[in-house]
Amino acid sequence: MQATPFPTASVADSLTLFHQRAPLVHCLTNDVVQSFTANVLLALGASPAMVVDPGEAAQFSALADALLINIGTLEVSRADAMLAAIASATQAGTPWVLDPVAVGGLTYRTAFAQQLLTMKPAAIRGNASEILALAGEGSAGRGVDSGNDSWFALPAARSLAQRWSTCVAVTGEVDYVTDGQRDWAVSGGDPLMTRVVGTGCALSAVVAGFCALEGDRLAHVAAACAVMSRCGARAAQQASGPGSFIPGFLDALYAERGGVTV
Amino acid sequence: MQATPFPTASVADSLTLFHQRAPLVHCLTNDVVQSFTANVLLALGASPAMVVDPGEAAQFSALADALLINIGTLEVSRADAMLAAIASATQAGTPWVLDPVAVGGLTYRTAFAQQLLTMKPAAIRGNASEILALAGEGSAGRGVDSGNDSWFALPAARSLAQRWSTCVAVTGEVDYVTDGQRDWAVSGGDPLMTRVVGTGCALSAVVAGFCALEGDRLAHVAAACAVMSRCGARAAQQASGPGSFIPGFLDALYAERGGVTV
Amino acid sequence: MQATPFPTASVADSLTLFHQRAPLVHCLTNDVVQSFTANVLLALGASPAMVVDPGEAAQFSALADALLINIGTLEVSRADAMLAAIASATQAGTPWVLDPVAVGGLTYRTAFAQQLLTMKPAAIRGNASEILALAGEGSAGRGVDSGNDSWFALPAARSLAQRWSTCVAVTGEVDYVTDGQRDWAVSGGDPLMTRVVGTGCALSAVVAGFCALEGDRLAHVAAACAVMSRCGARAAQQASGPGSFIPGFLDALYAERGGVTV
Repeated sequence: MQATPFPTASVADSLTLFHQRAPLVHCLTNDVVQSFTANVLLALGASPAMVVDPGEAAQFSALADALLINIGTLEVSRADAMLAAIASATQAGTPWVLDPVAVGGLTYRTAFAQQLLTMKPAAIRGNASEILALAGEGSAGRGVDSGNDSWFALPAARSLAQRWSTCVAVTGEVDYVTDGQRDWAVSGGDPLMTRVVGTGCALSAVVAGFCALEGDRLAHVAAACAVMSRCGARAAQQASGPGSFIPGFLDALYAERGGVTV
Repeated sequence: MQATPFPTASVADSLTLFHQRAPLVHCLTNDVVQSFTANVLLALGASPAMVVDPGEAAQFSALADALLINIGTLEVSRADAMLAAIASATQAGTPWVLDPVAVGGLTYRTAFAQQLLTMKPAAIRGNASEILALAGEGSAGRGVDSGNDSWFALPAARSLAQRWSTCVAVTGEVDYVTDGQRDWAVSGGDPLMTRVVGTGCALSAVVAGFCALEGDRLAHVAAACAVMSRCGARAAQQASGPGSFIPGFLDALYAERGGVTV
Repeated sequence: MQATPFPTASVADSLTLFHQRAPLVHCLTNDVVQSFTANVLLALGASPAMVVDPGEAAQFSALADALLINIGTLEVSRADAMLAAIASATQAGTPWVLDPVAVGGLTYRTAFAQQLLTMKPAAIRGNASEILALAGEGSAGRGVDSGNDSWFALPAARSLAQRWSTCVAVTGEVDYVTDGQRDWAVSGGDPLMTRVVGTGCALSAVVAGFCALEGDRLAHVAAACAVMSRCGARAAQQASGPGSFIPGFLDALYAERGGVTV
């Protein structure tokens, strides 16, 4: 069975909605990627905000258009803020997205991610080893790098999506997006993206922003992956390495605001 | 009533003093912008330091030339460090600057910022909605982005400056700097600066550094705004987007050390 | 007495081993430099991970190839994570490296760094004032900038290395690496590196990665310094300032993966 390539025209449709909405994305994310995540959202015309006190996080999630929960540098106080923010987002009808960074190998975050699953994320974005671990199928991963191919993890993504009524994006050389019934494949990107910290984490924040849009959520999640992939490919073409990739990538995302397409 | 444009010659005077002093700026700032803030200060020839343990923060503030208090990602432990650092700075005669990020919409930080006002900041730097909220005049802002024009917030800035005997910089398309008696207007900058996280926060750190200088504090605060604005304008002219803006902006700040002016 | 320049051929030998091993480096480092540190390790082909919960940090250190302990933004909870990670690393036979940021002037971290010394770091990397303070010989430093020359601190580095059976790298305009018996000198670099936050901290993370290699640890530590120095020199040659230095530096590190040498 093969996943259908997500059509470029649909990317443009979602992106137009995204630029119109300019979503305010509340990011509870890991400390390593906060700045890059904010810059990616800003380049795309969205507004990032990182509010981490539990009380304020709850208050802010109700005002935001979407919420990102990234468990990369999990600590007890941050976990409290995440739970408070999710509860508040849920009450306000604000969609939230889970990035289960490095689940599988580490006990605390794996249990915490399992708990989060029951709180109805609008979407989940992870690499193959994270999605396999989240689906309870084990993984060879020893950290944030994925030793498994995203295609191999697609069945786990599908069962995860069905069980929790959510969209799952399992990303890698090809990204697969599924709601358990339908699948989309998104190609593109560049290996250089794996040599820059936070490209996956920033994608999850962008996915959160796209979940704020009206319409077909699965298509919007696929569009988020597609925008990041093609901007990554463009930036890699111009770059001499991961250092020059970073400004080029942000510039490419910014150029998307002008409706520039390949 | 119109605010007088701050003269370029005065910018040069303050900047010369700044380069001679090369102030050590203790930054208690939000997690998203720490790296960019440090790089901005380093590019200008200053020394940044981020010391966050309450005991150490108090010890360090007495050694530093200036202290920045930015409440962007406020948490209880960080708030303790801020209060300890301010108390120590005050005792040592070290000036400190308040950046009231996102006050107004969020209860905890709004109350905390009101408490900080009573501790005599040397200067306050915020956008229009933050300055309006701090002055108790309400705001339409829902986060760090300002929905209000800086000109509209100038009267609030003036009353804030008078009430707390401080300098207030309300920044936006035009920056206004006031001590409640005198006003200066600083034009320049570029809309691209709003697509890069931390330009406002970094400005507050630079304002703190300029508050360490002898002489007319209001002029020094205006000079800090002017240096950042003109370097932003220069960088934007060369940039293809927010990605290439960042290195260009740091390079432009660094070039100011050679006395380069437009 | 003069230190022998570390030979370029030995740099190449260590670097080849490093690229083959592609070490997973667990970084407990300060908040200001996490992103840059991760990008430096990624550019060199290593895998960074920042896991900060005490329980998870202990679990993860046993899986990692090396551990970095950088006390730059020390807090009580982070200190707990550091102690747990070191204990676990020691039990697993994983080498760990100490970066004693700003010891000397600040009481809490100075006492903590002294405690860490007894836990047998594989290597220590600091500037002159930090190494002098750690050796109990006082320092004029008031923060992260070093007011002392690295050559002046070499005797303190030697006695520190002898007393704690470790390798010490005291870095500055020239870097000196010693195990108390043998010394190596590493020249190169560029003053521009002191105008970018985190070049020293990132070097410590690279030193940790090189400590994961089989063979002569002192040579590997010297090689880590040499790789960073020559990439810094290359990047500085192309840069217009500290802003353009950053992407150029990461690109230069990435180019080292192709075996490119001067």
